Amino acid sequence: MAVKGIKSKDKHIINLANIIGDARSILYHTEDLIAYDCDGFTLHKHLPKAVVFPKNTQEVANLVKYCSENQLPFLARGAGTGLSGGAIPLNGEVIISLVKMKRLLSVDLENRRAVVEPGFVNLKLTNSIADKGYYYAPDPSSQYCCTIGGNVAENAGGAHCLKYGVTTNHILGLEVVMPNGEIVEIGTNGIPDAPGYDLLGLLTGSEGTLGIVTKITVRILKNPEAKQTVLAYFDRVEDGSQAVSDIISAGIVPAALEMMDKVAIEGVEAAAFPVGHPRDIEAVLLIEVDGIAAGLDEQINHILEVCKNRNVREVRAAKDEAERGRWWANRKTGFGAMGAISPDYLVQDGVIPRSKLPEVLNNINKISEEYGLRIANIFHAGDGNLHPLVLFDARKPGESDRALAAGSACLQVCADVGGTITGEHGVGIEKREEMRFVFSDEEINAQTDIREVFNPHNLLNAGKLFPMPGRCVEIKRDLKEKEAAIS
Amino acid sequence: MAVKGIKSKDKHIINLANIIGDARSILYHTEDLIAYDCDGFTLHKHLPKAVVFPKNTQEVANLVKYCSENQLPFLARGAGTGLSGGAIPLNGEVIISLVKMKRLLSVDLENRRAVVEPGFVNLKLTNSIADKGYYYAPDPSSQYCCTIGGNVAENAGGAHCLKYGVTTNHILGLEVVMPNGEIVEIGTNGIPDAPGYDLLGLLTGSEGTLGIVTKITVRILKNPEAKQTVLAYFDRVEDGSQAVSDIISAGIVPAALEMMDKVAIEGVEAAAFPVGHPRDIEAVLLIEVDGIAAGLDEQINHILEVCKNRNVREVRAAKDEAERGRWWANRKTGFGAMGAISPDYLVQDGVIPRSKLPEVLNNINKISEEYGLRIANIFHAGDGNLHPLVLFDARKPGESDRALAAGSACLQVCADVGGTITGEHGVGIEKREEMRFVFSDEEINAQTDIREVFNPHNLLNAGKLFPMPGRCVEIKRDLKEKEAAIS
Repeated sequence: MAVKGIKSKDKHIINLANIIGDARSILYHTEDLIAYDCDGFTLHKHLPKAVVFPKNTQEVANLVKYCSENQLPFLARGAGTGLSGGAIPLNGEVIISLVKMKRLLSVDLENRRAVVEPGFVNLKLTNSIADKGYYYAPDPSSQYCCTIGGNVAENAGGAHCLKYGVTTNHILGLEVVMPNGEIVEIGTNGIPDAPGYDLLGLLTGSEGTLGIVTKITVRILKNPEAKQTVLAYFDRVEDGSQAVSDIISAGIVPAALEMMDKVAIEGVEAAAFPVGHPRDIEAVLLIEVDGIAAGLDEQINHILEVCKNRNVREVRAAKDEAERGRWWANRKTGFGAMGAISPDYLVQDGVIPRSKLPEVLNNINKISEEYGLRIANIFHAGDGNLHPLVLFDARKPGESDRALAAGSACLQVCADVGGTITGEHGVGIEKREEMRFVFSDEEINAQTDIREVFNPHNLLNAGKLFPMPGRCVEIKRDLKEKEAAIS
Repeated sequence: MAVKGIKSKDKHIINLANIIGDARSILYHTEDLIAYDCDGFTLHKHLPKAVVFPKNTQEVANLVKYCSENQLPFLARGAGTGLSGGAIPLNGEVIISLVKMKRLLSVDLENRRAVVEPGFVNLKLTNSIADKGYYYAPDPSSQYCCTIGGNVAENAGGAHCLKYGVTTNHILGLEVVMPNGEIVEIGTNGIPDAPGYDLLGLLTGSEGTLGIVTKITVRILKNPEAKQTVLAYFDRVEDGSQAVSDIISAGIVPAALEMMDKVAIEGVEAAAFPVGHPRDIEAVLLIEVDGIAAGLDEQINHILEVCKNRNVREVRAAKDEAERGRWWANRKTGFGAMGAISPDYLVQDGVIPRSKLPEVLNNINKISEEYGLRIANIFHAGDGNLHPLVLFDARKPGESDRALAAGSACLQVCADVGGTITGEHGVGIEKREEMRFVFSDEEINAQTDIREVFNPHNLLNAGKLFPMPGRCVEIKRDLKEKEAAIS
């Protein structure tokens, strides 16, 4: 017998509702499911079978066990801000939404760690400990709404990952529900070289294909004593790129070293947080250093000097925290800002060796011309993580396809110079085929063999991360058709 | 027909010699093999079937293929300095020694990376690039002779890993011969969040059980502009421990933060590099900060102040590089120095949360009393990595066993406070059973399942890393008997 309020005759819906014991914690009507048909990657849409909202680990385990025993495909979802489609229910999955598991469970300042549930929002952690002088380092631009569980799945990066590392460098332990419903603890409290294989590293960034994370122990850091931020405008992108290399070569490790090109500047200046960047420059650098106050002035002077040696048009340090905040708001809302100059945009996520920056930007320009689409570039220049934003208009026939193809071509350029196809957004469904740019069949098989150890029936988030002929739903890039079918 | 000079009638010896095409590159006489019956963990000895010295990746692949096809157990060995027995041929393995593959293949200063063969000695890398102002960070105390291939296998740490991380944080790519002889490339040039599962992390620290590394791309760092080093003497170990916590809490990240206790001081002062530590103190701290010169004085002053607030007896900064060098020589030769005060010693390698230091040291003292054996403590205090050195005399009946039992008890103490059983030396054969202190059966099975993906017949370095009833040679701790059998 179903819990009160369930209007479905589907035995699985009834049984899933029974597991969580609450009719308000399950969605199964088509009109409710539409909100879950995609994530931040909006170019493919698929309806889930249901969305369930467990409140604790045991409920997650019970749901997983049920799905596993009944051969129902399932996947976990956080805030749904992922940019590569990792939470899209390709196979009509039961979505296990973790947004009700959003508690900060403990903070241990002495040993610099905190324990959170997976649905806890990234920025809330820093906000919760800021008054004591601590923060959580990984800062994806979506940090005001994305969840730490999702960050673990995607091994999320952010502007300050140049100095502080990506999510995997800040995860000390995980509680995981395995695809058979078993609950395991992984990681030994942040000990860097713990015994046994590095399962913590293996799970982090596995894009929800190996297990569902239900508790996360993270490293927290002491706030740096001081921060200083510099903005530099370059007439030529080569000079900007070279300044990036020069700063790193000087032995300075900036907390962040961001670049935007001319098209990107047009976008951010037309959007909600303009700061008055000149429109005729080719590159703006946003450079932040942090640490003990005594050393910062010297670093800033060094950075100013490097920029001057590279023909900077204008360079200056933020005069106060308010100005620094405006510069960061301008940068961190950069993706969305493209909406101000284009009806649609597709963000890509390639990585290249820093020294290849001018060559790669030049090739991306050629792609832009070839496909007849403008491409803005916003990137974490310090670690060579590019975000080409392909601007397009989905209403024009064939333009979505052309945008996807142009994005793929940008990734090929990155792979060709010894880089790779994702720096922080993950592979998901978006870049499955592009995995072949960087992995041989054997290397992909070695990875799917590992998946099989954890996820033997591939019921958990199937069709993601790997090109898998015959095993996953064929994704056709005929988007219009699919969207029409759903709406 | 065998290559010229082979005196064996064993078809496998003849065939192995043929693969490397050189009679001087294979050892198979018992008198030659004895040198390979153990590594830095000398309490168990087993003779290999043969030792072969390939000169390149293809030869390694051919040897592995031969062993695999002929069901011959095999393992890789670097300099043999490992402290947990990872290179001991428990099953009469064919040892594939990588010491002839010792070239520095390339250095790319602009992108901060170098490529080495596995037999390249750790310190030689720093020596090769020092004149250009760069260095390789992981610095195990054996760095003057240990190889980078071995460092990868064990995920080696070192005194400066507090700030700079252990080996896994510095490995950007690997060429690996898989247990079936296939050659694969792993890692995408140091991109922190590369697509796919983190195979690079999985291989690093897998103690030679998943594949044989034949080429390594490592990160190299710019030398810090300046270094300063402080020595502090404490009458009470609690004060020294508290000073460690206070320094970290102050937001300072020292490059190194080392501690030695009273027994350790007795040893290092009696050995080759005494520096005049007072004999009646309970703890000496060696604290090093590095970075931009402008910030260092302030950090040093802060450290001096912290120490004074914790009742330090004496604290001072090194007056010059020569003094700094003497302090480090005193510390880095600490293990061997125990030979000056004890006929034998067993080094252990536990890790604990920093805040548990006084409690754990107290419990180790109790173990010392209980087992009637002195225990010296040398440790990386900043990251809670303890090295209890159990002093014993192998000539006295039963004392070796008692030392092993006392070492194991120390690890139990570490595990009990939420720590673990190895911080940098690996599990090998030494701590196989102690894996149960920190892993459940399910967690161990998950790991052996992963091993099976790579190493399905368990021919590569079997019997290491995991407690595996029925699958590996039973290790009896009756050492005398085994040693007698070999000699």
